Amino acid sequence: MPETLPPDSVGLVTPQAMTFSDPLEFESGAVIDDYTLAFETYGELNAAHSNAILICHALSSHHHAAGYHSMDERKPGWWDNCIGLGKAIDTRRFFVVCSNNLGGCHGSTGPASTNPVTGKPYGRGFPDIVVKDWVRSQSHLADKLGIDRWAAVIGGSLGGMQAMQWSIDYPERLAHAIVIAAAPRLSAQNIAFNEVARTAIKSDPDFHDGDYYGHNVIPERGLRLARMLGHITYLSDDSMHARFGRELQEGSPTRGYDMEFQVESYLRYQGSKFAGEFDANTYLLMTKTLDHFDPAKEYDDDLTRALARAQAKFLVMSFTGDWRFSPERSREIVRALLENNLDVVYARIEVDEGHDAFLMKIPQYLQVFGAYMQRLARELGA
Amino acid sequence: MPETLPPDSVGLVTPQAMTFSDPLEFESGAVIDDYTLAFETYGELNAAHSNAILICHALSSHHHAAGYHSMDERKPGWWDNCIGLGKAIDTRRFFVVCSNNLGGCHGSTGPASTNPVTGKPYGRGFPDIVVKDWVRSQSHLADKLGIDRWAAVIGGSLGGMQAMQWSIDYPERLAHAIVIAAAPRLSAQNIAFNEVARTAIKSDPDFHDGDYYGHNVIPERGLRLARMLGHITYLSDDSMHARFGRELQEGSPTRGYDMEFQVESYLRYQGSKFAGEFDANTYLLMTKTLDHFDPAKEYDDDLTRALARAQAKFLVMSFTGDWRFSPERSREIVRALLENNLDVVYARIEVDEGHDAFLMKIPQYLQVFGAYMQRLARELGA
Repeated sequence: MPETLPPDSVGLVTPQAMTFSDPLEFESGAVIDDYTLAFETYGELNAAHSNAILICHALSSHHHAAGYHSMDERKPGWWDNCIGLGKAIDTRRFFVVCSNNLGGCHGSTGPASTNPVTGKPYGRGFPDIVVKDWVRSQSHLADKLGIDRWAAVIGGSLGGMQAMQWSIDYPERLAHAIVIAAAPRLSAQNIAFNEVARTAIKSDPDFHDGDYYGHNVIPERGLRLARMLGHITYLSDDSMHARFGRELQEGSPTRGYDMEFQVESYLRYQGSKFAGEFDANTYLLMTKTLDHFDPAKEYDDDLTRALARAQAKFLVMSFTGDWRFSPERSREIVRALLENNLDVVYARIEVDEGHDAFLMKIPQYLQVFGAYMQRLARELGA
Repeated sequence: MPETLPPDSVGLVTPQAMTFSDPLEFESGAVIDDYTLAFETYGELNAAHSNAILICHALSSHHHAAGYHSMDERKPGWWDNCIGLGKAIDTRRFFVVCSNNLGGCHGSTGPASTNPVTGKPYGRGFPDIVVKDWVRSQSHLADKLGIDRWAAVIGGSLGGMQAMQWSIDYPERLAHAIVIAAAPRLSAQNIAFNEVARTAIKSDPDFHDGDYYGHNVIPERGLRLARMLGHITYLSDDSMHARFGRELQEGSPTRGYDMEFQVESYLRYQGSKFAGEFDANTYLLMTKTLDHFDPAKEYDDDLTRALARAQAKFLVMSFTGDWRFSPERSREIVRALLENNLDVVYARIEVDEGHDAFLMKIPQYLQVFGAYMQRLARELGA
């Protein structure tokens, strides 16, 4: 709870919401007649509308990417390490937009929203979403904000997949795509972890086949397990060792059934926190979106052909400690981009941190990222 | 269901049980007055009683290591790839013993057994177990079988930890220790996976704080999740890719909520099968035993000092695709053994398979293992 906000913070921010009354047709064929996207913006859109950056969020995140909602907020937005005055994404130069993905649970229309047809929450009746759908909905937001072309679309993890999809679906609407800690598609192991998380949620007796809203409960046990498991995949073995080792939790017996290691206590805390904040149906929906992402699929598994329409310049970054989407997965993207003669910068950051590294204050990472963004700003004359 | 058994099989085997009426004191101080160990043997004990091999099993396994219980049994014992006529552990030369660990759920006394004091299942009242306790109970079995000294104590994973503990606790009672795909102790990440599995079981409403026996239910959802998660850690990303890739399950829709990848179906099958076979309290108990194992702890984290009493000759084997207990963990053991001037052979098997590799028919592995065992047989004149 800062008494004054850090000088390089974007400061106090107010979430906004854009409601669209044009029907949105999903790739699945489903249609919703109207929908809302929650979003935030930081910095100022210039007169030429050429300095806008779209930030795409990862699985369990939202539109609050930087700054504080109030002086009482304990922690700033999730990418405050990268967005702010003089930071890698410098809000003195760029107009930054981050929206909560459709299907989310932080203000955008999603499974917990009321389905106007039934007067009840969509629940499991919310349309299946693929990354293309998100990108299309974000393009409508860009239209409304008067942004014809993004200076960059940027994201980590599932956010990086959205940036990639933007470059394929709207090649003329972005100058740069920045794809961090992502993969061209999930491996069987990635899918397997998601499936265990989904099974935990769906087998929770409080899930009620997705209609827990009507029962005034939440599948808390399932969400907690999903998040505990998620955290293991976000950290590396090395970073867990550095943070927790085999240290026992304070007050733990030193042996036996009730012995508790610090890492166990950490996971339980993270799990319980998440269970109180996140909608289970959104988690199911978004993990399925993640599993399904595979732009090469309709091109005989040829990622190069999938990216053939892309025109953006690319920055691709990976982290050596990331075993979820390892550097090898980023290199697959880089290879496909190079085969299309696209302009690519690839940085493989040597760091013990795991997948979560993209959120962290890691000097080498922020330096590469910042230098690239400065070049971008110079291109714009921003 | 073989109509005739394979010629290199140990054939039809009958599980045995040894009941001990001397009280067993656990490291925790708890005592049980009598207990049973289920076990099997293969091959013949020679006149000098010098050709006996103890096989120690891993987390969720049992004493049925080789052969068939009946002509109707679909699959042989869990280590049939390694135990048999002319196999790495050649039953023409060795007398092989494998017991179900105390606390288990396949015939040895465990949480599901009746506590003679209460007349009810022990449940969570079963004493906490550490690897030292298992080794002590196995030494009592050796006494009863007339085996003063094992030609070798052999195990993979948690079984390898028991072999290591044998070499520390009864240095004169084994000639060789064979430690496969093991680690000197669990990492924070290893513990974290176990904790998610335990949380899944304990948060299942059918767990009833361990007294599900009295409610005629089993915490099936929790066990299923624990096993699904376990399987992810037993396989490697590469081996999952090779086995499942991103192939959809037959009959799966190609998109959306109900889309199902083969890997998901596989995990669910494994999970459900396990939930019907394994006792939840045993799973909790044994994962805690695994987490707690750390022979170096009482020697200021110095594994070399912990192994200073060992006299056995060692074969240590690891698999490059094993990310649960990676080759680096085996090298820690090897270093400590070498610093004690012990006789060590170390083999790092280059293979994409994960932790489960130690159970598989992998030519390079079986060749190294078999050659070592032949040397051992020659030593014995067996």
